[in-house]
Amino acid sequence: MRSTKNIVVIGGGTGSFTLLSGLKNYAEHITALVNVADDGGSTGILRDELGVLPPGDVRQCLVALGESSKLRDVFSYRFAEGSLKGHSFGNLFLSAVEKMTDSFYEAVELAGELLRIQGRVLPITLDKSHLVMIDKEGRRTKGEHKIATMDFMGTKRPALHLEPHAKILPEAELAIKEADVIVIAPGSLYGSLAPALVVDGVGEAILNSKAKLLYVCNLVTKPRQTDGFKVHDYADEIERFIGGKALDYVVFNTDEPTPTMLKKYTHDGEFPVEFDLEVMDDRHYKAIGLPLIDTEPIKINKNDAIGHSRSLIRHNSDTLAREIVKVSGK
Amino acid sequence: MRSTKNIVVIGGGTGSFTLLSGLKNYAEHITALVNVADDGGSTGILRDELGVLPPGDVRQCLVALGESSKLRDVFSYRFAEGSLKGHSFGNLFLSAVEKMTDSFYEAVELAGELLRIQGRVLPITLDKSHLVMIDKEGRRTKGEHKIATMDFMGTKRPALHLEPHAKILPEAELAIKEADVIVIAPGSLYGSLAPALVVDGVGEAILNSKAKLLYVCNLVTKPRQTDGFKVHDYADEIERFIGGKALDYVVFNTDEPTPTMLKKYTHDGEFPVEFDLEVMDDRHYKAIGLPLIDTEPIKINKNDAIGHSRSLIRHNSDTLAREIVKVSGK
Repeated sequence: MRSTKNIVVIGGGTGSFTLLSGLKNYAEHITALVNVADDGGSTGILRDELGVLPPGDVRQCLVALGESSKLRDVFSYRFAEGSLKGHSFGNLFLSAVEKMTDSFYEAVELAGELLRIQGRVLPITLDKSHLVMIDKEGRRTKGEHKIATMDFMGTKRPALHLEPHAKILPEAELAIKEADVIVIAPGSLYGSLAPALVVDGVGEAILNSKAKLLYVCNLVTKPRQTDGFKVHDYADEIERFIGGKALDYVVFNTDEPTPTMLKKYTHDGEFPVEFDLEVMDDRHYKAIGLPLIDTEPIKINKNDAIGHSRSLIRHNSDTLAREIVKVSGK
Repeated sequence: MRSTKNIVVIGGGTGSFTLLSGLKNYAEHITALVNVADDGGSTGILRDELGVLPPGDVRQCLVALGESSKLRDVFSYRFAEGSLKGHSFGNLFLSAVEKMTDSFYEAVELAGELLRIQGRVLPITLDKSHLVMIDKEGRRTKGEHKIATMDFMGTKRPALHLEPHAKILPEAELAIKEADVIVIAPGSLYGSLAPALVVDGVGEAILNSKAKLLYVCNLVTKPRQTDGFKVHDYADEIERFIGGKALDYVVFNTDEPTPTMLKKYTHDGEFPVEFDLEVMDDRHYKAIGLPLIDTEPIKINKNDAIGHSRSLIRHNSDTLAREIVKVSGK
């Protein structure tokens, strides 16, 4: 029997996709709140050319929660040739409906209907804005994709904001208010979670909510951005974005990657995120260590060019989902 | 109560769209057999770049028979900017699913499910080929779009064939065999009907079918192609494509266009198709004259760039549908 608690998941990208794919088997009332500051790839082209809101992260969450297996494949299909090369069909759908109805919200709703999603997917804001980072020398970098992939040149914990300011979608605010548990999904700290959490009103809504707040920490560090970060450093950054000591639980991985995995990762400059139990014991949240590395061979969708570049190392979505439901009190 | 007779409609393009839009309110078992030799516009680009079958005419028939008003609008939506400019969303859907499943048939089926179509839409063949015309001087022209829009330079009744040869889809053959009435929809004689009727096996299936064969003649002539053609000339051409004197009924218009309409049309070199009752009385088919000009103001879909160029003069789809049902014997 699935949990009937209200579970809100905040994030976007592959981390949210993995978490939601598992969670839908354990919970009935899921609301995914998705970052809409992306400006890379197919999404970036659609943003630039059509002036739409970025569809990519929303599409991934819709597919994760979708029950129609045929349409999930169609939404994930990416054109490989010609002038459509790189565009995923789901992105084109969301952008076509947004242009037609002048409402990204309606586009997401219609896609959800067609995919027969379990739960809801909401853009965390409907305001169009770009992520801006200011490094320790005061230099500005604009654009989520650029920030997500750049070398921070030694800047730690950079200042981040959206330009122009973006305001939380009222439906997202209400979902946070009525949640039993709010999950901050794993994902790129500066390229995926910050752009969702620094939206005006999101931190405030989380701080005012009676829900338990749970953060699922990443498995590996990001080279030239979070080198040397331990679990508590990640958690500190999440609380900095939220604007208060709001975390009730921090879930982290205790599995050791296999030597093969490790070799591949360290070669790319990524290292397993280490944890320091002594430091975490002094924090206000409960640290939950779990064996979280998924050892199932990855299923690569041959039609999704992005699939090939996805992490080999990823969260076990079943273990995560069970822990989230446990924390939610059901 | 709607007719339960098996009605097959052969054609593609705006003529089929109009006829099917009306017919679905009067008949339950409609099968639209659609020409797949188009190579112009969005369809032509997708053909060239992705190597898919041309989706445009099939999309129009799907939308005509669709019951989901929201999705009909989405399928008809045409991007107006950027690198997607000119592509209709429905074309992108059909091409994405064809690329993904390697089956245009499956793509059309899935689109039909989503649009909740009343009846069936089938590509008349799944073979990829191009229309070729040979004029009276023996010059070849290749490509449906080119042929549909060219000046025939005095050639009347040109030779037309497909290269390479295309074979009728078995499901289309069966539909013709089991039909109670087969309707040749109005449409461009050389750019829309010929490419469907010259597919190998189509003429033979029609000649062998016990169904009544009805042709709905165009309202206006096509400049530099069918100038001066009367209703019986059109009917003769249809029988030439089929390869035998198969027509049982020829339905034509007896309405006079308003002076405003007429002015607009004659300015473009188009003239109302005239009829010669004496000639038709000598033919083997029954000529049925009806007031067929639709006087309802045209509803232009602002999201469909093609909408603006569509004929102001068009068939009254209700009158047509009632006549078809009458002929079908129910």
